[in-house]
Amino acid sequence: MSVLTTADSSPTAAVDLGPAAALSCRECGERFPLSPIFACASCFGPLEIAYDLPSGDPEGLRRRIEAGPKSIWRYAPLLPVPADVASKPNLNPGFTPLVKADRLAAELGVTGPLYVKDDSGNPTHSFKDRVVAQALEAARAFGFTTLSCSSTGNLAGAVGAAAARAGLRSCVFIPHDLEQGKVVMAAVYGGQVVAIEGSYDDVNRFCSELIGDPLGEGWGFVNVNLRPYYAEGSKTLAFEICEQLGWQLPDQLVIPIASGSQLTKIDKGLKELIATGLVEEKPYRIFGAQAEGCSPVSQAFRAGHDVVRPVKPNTIAKSLAIGNPADGPYVLDIARRTGGAVADVTDEEIVSAIKLLARTEGIFTETAGGVTLGVARKLLAEGTLDPSLTTVVVNTGDGLKTLDAVAADTGPTATIRPTLDSFREAGLE
Amino acid sequence: MSVLTTADSSPTAAVDLGPAAALSCRECGERFPLSPIFACASCFGPLEIAYDLPSGDPEGLRRRIEAGPKSIWRYAPLLPVPADVASKPNLNPGFTPLVKADRLAAELGVTGPLYVKDDSGNPTHSFKDRVVAQALEAARAFGFTTLSCSSTGNLAGAVGAAAARAGLRSCVFIPHDLEQGKVVMAAVYGGQVVAIEGSYDDVNRFCSELIGDPLGEGWGFVNVNLRPYYAEGSKTLAFEICEQLGWQLPDQLVIPIASGSQLTKIDKGLKELIATGLVEEKPYRIFGAQAEGCSPVSQAFRAGHDVVRPVKPNTIAKSLAIGNPADGPYVLDIARRTGGAVADVTDEEIVSAIKLLARTEGIFTETAGGVTLGVARKLLAEGTLDPSLTTVVVNTGDGLKTLDAVAADTGPTATIRPTLDSFREAGLE
Repeated sequence: MSVLTTADSSPTAAVDLGPAAALSCRECGERFPLSPIFACASCFGPLEIAYDLPSGDPEGLRRRIEAGPKSIWRYAPLLPVPADVASKPNLNPGFTPLVKADRLAAELGVTGPLYVKDDSGNPTHSFKDRVVAQALEAARAFGFTTLSCSSTGNLAGAVGAAAARAGLRSCVFIPHDLEQGKVVMAAVYGGQVVAIEGSYDDVNRFCSELIGDPLGEGWGFVNVNLRPYYAEGSKTLAFEICEQLGWQLPDQLVIPIASGSQLTKIDKGLKELIATGLVEEKPYRIFGAQAEGCSPVSQAFRAGHDVVRPVKPNTIAKSLAIGNPADGPYVLDIARRTGGAVADVTDEEIVSAIKLLARTEGIFTETAGGVTLGVARKLLAEGTLDPSLTTVVVNTGDGLKTLDAVAADTGPTATIRPTLDSFREAGLE
Repeated sequence: MSVLTTADSSPTAAVDLGPAAALSCRECGERFPLSPIFACASCFGPLEIAYDLPSGDPEGLRRRIEAGPKSIWRYAPLLPVPADVASKPNLNPGFTPLVKADRLAAELGVTGPLYVKDDSGNPTHSFKDRVVAQALEAARAFGFTTLSCSSTGNLAGAVGAAAARAGLRSCVFIPHDLEQGKVVMAAVYGGQVVAIEGSYDDVNRFCSELIGDPLGEGWGFVNVNLRPYYAEGSKTLAFEICEQLGWQLPDQLVIPIASGSQLTKIDKGLKELIATGLVEEKPYRIFGAQAEGCSPVSQAFRAGHDVVRPVKPNTIAKSLAIGNPADGPYVLDIARRTGGAVADVTDEEIVSAIKLLARTEGIFTETAGGVTLGVARKLLAEGTLDPSLTTVVVNTGDGLKTLDAVAADTGPTATIRPTLDSFREAGLE
């Protein structure tokens, strides 16, 4: 297990990752120096970043953030990156729109303010650019020369693009049956793309093997050996949502669950905003969203279990199709602690939600966004989400990458000859 | 011709479109009140907006802009929109990244700063969101209830999305042979999409007929009867580029040509920045880019003609496939007046440029972006573009919408079983 728990012989002493002070075990709390490891040497628990966060002057910190770049790097004082990160070649993702969704709210019977955090505006059109940007800095700090990942699609594109901008080699691993848009997007940046005959969970297991093999030397797997750094990127969603609400916590958040990492890190981000005094503490509730065809966390929530039993995914929401979600137990804990819930929707409900969001707000989301909005709609109908509170639904991706989900019945209303008579005959006016 | 030249009986007296003062003929200079017309009653020349621009306090104006929203609405004092535009339901496009493209520059032998203005970050991932946002305000001002357009694809999606957000009906017209991504994106917002058996020029002619017919009453065609307002949106590209360069003019701009409107309005925007004192006057050169398979302006430029002879388009760059470009003569004039040029590239060169941009900067552009970068590369090789100056290449769209252009040879490097042996056999390490 030494590959999991011990730093390379690379010069990690010189590592400058800003306020990141150490790695800390989420289970037993043991601390380790910053290095490319992801599991605790004592208890094999997952590691996360511990910080020396700025304190004592929240007003000054807020001004510094507001004067920063229009990207996640405005939050550099709260991230595991060097202070000069914005000047390095990277995709500068983030600071995507928080859209006030009044027409959607009216249709859902929501009376409180409803927002969609629209991450389709990121450089490769998914929230993955946020996490990859952190992993890239860690890869540079640890001297890795190849950027890699296991991916359900969005991540492969984000890694390929980030590596291209940074001038690093990339090699990404995907299941062999992905949507064409995601495959082309993974490959177009010129890196290596390896399709694996198997599910995402097979791809993930393979990458864990590769990382322990000499073949994987010098490789930074953004979501394996760089995972503690990578995962912190999701906090920036929490930071932006609160800043865009005028430095306030929302009352309710609805977040998709793949590995569960995004949801747990959004919660971590909210807690760090409270700890630094950037927002005032108040209760908030976190809701997790899955597709029925891959709903191990939702099933565990309903059954009152603390553990998550792996499933074999079968859903159109391929970017969420992780049958064995690493952060599942933490998600259950957060949903229960905050008074939230975890729920799931069918593929039909996913497609219906995609169209609802497009029709009411002009936002074309991918299947994952359909899952999240579909679950929000379901929880509202059940009375689990309070329609009178400030609610944020997180849209993590872009409909152009999952055209197949809607293409079958989304085409021209009519095909005509270029004449008024032909138009009249079509009866559209 | 009354439909072309006379305002409706709608209450145009109450029209508040900010600093827009009147419509003015680009040929004879005659002025008309703000209304949904697009051709001069005296000489049938195209109309454009005349402004009462802010003057006398450029520093104050600059501060006001910099404190504005992170969208095109920061430039509301220079656009035909009401002052409270940002509070109305629209897609808030713009303020997209100006990417310093150092790796691309190195590969092209450019020594001066090279930038890509990356408009794929707009809400529907093309620059069209900028122009539609202006037309939407005009439609609201003139009381239109249906938003419409003729489109080569990107515009249809932008109109559908903007109408959905604003709660207007939409009906858009497209050629029947568009890329699937663009068709789905046009239709997913729930408006009507009419496919026309013919080329874009046929679609355009049909829309002009429809607008003169009772069938088209109450319809705002963003690029026909609302064209003078619509076209102004392209100025925001000029505004953003200069602000992002620290309120300076670039030396050279390379811009794609479809109708030619974008290029002429970027030039107009630069001149307005000079007129208001927001930037210091200095020479700049404007270069236009076309695909060889639809290069009427480039052919006229090379031949030294002042008029543009229409062509029948045949190129993979469908979003630029306008065989009879309305603003062609103005483009020729601007390229010659500023010391620029107009050139074209083959479909092969387009694909090669798409891949070059993806590989060096992690930006996946559509075919139109391949045209623009391809022409920039060609003009550099010829010595027509000066490699030592500040150059901006405008990327107007997103590669996900034209997957077919690269899909044939952009896929997995290898397909393997999820084992180290299978990976080793693939010989990729």
